[in-house]
Amino acid sequence: MDKNKPIIVRYGEIGVKSPKVRKRFERKLISNIKTLIDGKIVLEQGRIFLFPENYEEALESLKKICGVVSFSPTVSTETNYDSIKATVQDYIKDLIEKGQFSIEKSFAVKCRRVGTHDFSSREMAGFCGAAVVDLTGAPVDLSNPDFRLFVEVRDDKTYLYHEKIDGVGGLPIGTQGRLIALVSGGIDSPVASYLMMKRGCDLTILNFNNCPYTSGSSEKVVKIYEKLKEYSAGSDLRLYQVNYGDFLKKCKDEAPERMTCVLCKSGMYQIAEKLAKRENALAIVDGSSVGQVASQTLPNILATRYSTSIPVLSPLIGLDKLEIAEIGKKIGTYDISILPDSGCKAAPKHPETNAVLEKVLEVKKAINMDEETEKVFSSLHEIDLDSE
Amino acid sequence: MDKNKPIIVRYGEIGVKSPKVRKRFERKLISNIKTLIDGKIVLEQGRIFLFPENYEEALESLKKICGVVSFSPTVSTETNYDSIKATVQDYIKDLIEKGQFSIEKSFAVKCRRVGTHDFSSREMAGFCGAAVVDLTGAPVDLSNPDFRLFVEVRDDKTYLYHEKIDGVGGLPIGTQGRLIALVSGGIDSPVASYLMMKRGCDLTILNFNNCPYTSGSSEKVVKIYEKLKEYSAGSDLRLYQVNYGDFLKKCKDEAPERMTCVLCKSGMYQIAEKLAKRENALAIVDGSSVGQVASQTLPNILATRYSTSIPVLSPLIGLDKLEIAEIGKKIGTYDISILPDSGCKAAPKHPETNAVLEKVLEVKKAINMDEETEKVFSSLHEIDLDSE
Repeated sequence: MDKNKPIIVRYGEIGVKSPKVRKRFERKLISNIKTLIDGKIVLEQGRIFLFPENYEEALESLKKICGVVSFSPTVSTETNYDSIKATVQDYIKDLIEKGQFSIEKSFAVKCRRVGTHDFSSREMAGFCGAAVVDLTGAPVDLSNPDFRLFVEVRDDKTYLYHEKIDGVGGLPIGTQGRLIALVSGGIDSPVASYLMMKRGCDLTILNFNNCPYTSGSSEKVVKIYEKLKEYSAGSDLRLYQVNYGDFLKKCKDEAPERMTCVLCKSGMYQIAEKLAKRENALAIVDGSSVGQVASQTLPNILATRYSTSIPVLSPLIGLDKLEIAEIGKKIGTYDISILPDSGCKAAPKHPETNAVLEKVLEVKKAINMDEETEKVFSSLHEIDLDSE
Repeated sequence: MDKNKPIIVRYGEIGVKSPKVRKRFERKLISNIKTLIDGKIVLEQGRIFLFPENYEEALESLKKICGVVSFSPTVSTETNYDSIKATVQDYIKDLIEKGQFSIEKSFAVKCRRVGTHDFSSREMAGFCGAAVVDLTGAPVDLSNPDFRLFVEVRDDKTYLYHEKIDGVGGLPIGTQGRLIALVSGGIDSPVASYLMMKRGCDLTILNFNNCPYTSGSSEKVVKIYEKLKEYSAGSDLRLYQVNYGDFLKKCKDEAPERMTCVLCKSGMYQIAEKLAKRENALAIVDGSSVGQVASQTLPNILATRYSTSIPVLSPLIGLDKLEIAEIGKKIGTYDISILPDSGCKAAPKHPETNAVLEKVLEVKKAINMDEETEKVFSSLHEIDLDSE
């Protein structure tokens, strides 16, 4: 731990909350960071200053903590001309050695100040710029520089940095309550889950094992769970499964064939609601996107959600497949999702795309939907993570 | 109209639909394009070839048609070596004159082929590359060129282009059914509306006039309507308003003060559902985003949606404020949304953030919510677009 090399951590929307909410969010963000990173943490004027035990590990961990908008490795010094000049020159020397600063390329210094000083931000930027020119002779270009040095003066401490590394953004996980996330092995549902974690929600993942209509292997969903877990610092990410094959068989045997997918999705919501009660969750999240596949028409969305009394949140509802895949690639779930699997053999050749609510309710009654979903729910179990 | 200068229009997800659905979507996309662009349209092998009367206007219009993924102004010729060589050289000469091709910068030719020819795609790319070198002497760089020339050989026709202009993406508007869009003058709801149009939905916009708790001016919502209308080619984008002030007064007078926002949002959904019945709409869309403001906590989302039996789609539910603002800027609603307005003076100083469903239902009963929302709905009217 180097007391002169804090990482400055920026968080965004917390800033606009009321002081009370803000305090609660900041405390949660810091406690989430602490679950991953050992070291000292100081909160000051809307910034977190992190002095990690293991610097490189901390930089990697910060990229996956919900609520962190960006962060910068810094070098700090006392706020006085001599030490600032010396520190700026050492900072640049070090970058030249690493090949990250070239005396032939242009640079600019940007300065921000908090507190009262006998210089303006502009004067300090000029002073630091001169120190760099003294050392390197590199050309200054304020409008379109190749390299930017940031000088942040905070009262009697001054911080130098040149990198602003993107975090996940959003809100600290654990500040918004728990959701039941319907997660399959596909591309969409892991992305939907991630987006809601990013908005501060704890998740309980619910997976439906459609065996014998699928291979019954839980390998993909376990891999997705483990990938999502990387973004869940400070939250208890849970993973449950129910056996859904018998229910699907009943749908296929006793309901009109084209209605299998509608009944399947409808059942998922009803079972998720049961789990929500047990988990004190307040809503369901799924990967629905209007018009993407046959089951995701507006009439089907209406009919499948009708019997569910808690909200179904569908963060992908307005996104294109390409946009969803892009997020999946960024967070690392996409490569797992595209691993080959058997697909679901329960789906009929011509699934209903224009479900009529009254008809669906009638069929649900005929197949004893409430009783059947209760039966499915009684098969709820955790997936053994080690056996996969 | 130049028969040798078609614009190639690409559409995306339609490609993955069943042949029947695909045909329906293609027909709708073409008819949507025709509402904005005069000229000839040819559909061939998953591409639309557009021969517009007014070329420049057509390029602008295509940027705002839902379902168009990208498009390219092209020059076409017969598929034979002599005419391809001559056309390539004319094409490059023209670009040099316009300053869009420099003989000092590197280039590459990419070729795609549909049909049977006595050359491979690679051979044709090489042939065209040699024609450019003959003319200009410019250096070829296949891995990282400054300029790319695309050659698309389709049977006996060959098309040249160098630009791929982004469209809106998504699905043709009018293929998914109608939604009721709750639109205020804020940043979020116009973006949410846009995303659902992009996914192929027709919209009926519903605005709540909170006068006397706001100025009562409809100027902003009319401007937002007109901006959204630019993306609605082929759809009848409707705009309605209800008078909400009396209802808000009743809430303030007769319900616990901190519950005003919860009752307000809850009432909006109930009234939107009434309008949905009249408009044959299948769901509601709004700009909710978890945790963004006091009213958007999970307990409040649950309580406000409980009495609504059609789905509420919230495409922004998993996005950060910055991400939402970015989309708003791209589509041009953001600048309207940030115009100063009076805000809503009905909001209490400490709004409920942890609504308890049972309590909310109790209060709704006490203030005769069902009767009151019926009263509000009877004030439904169109906003006079010219008077604003």
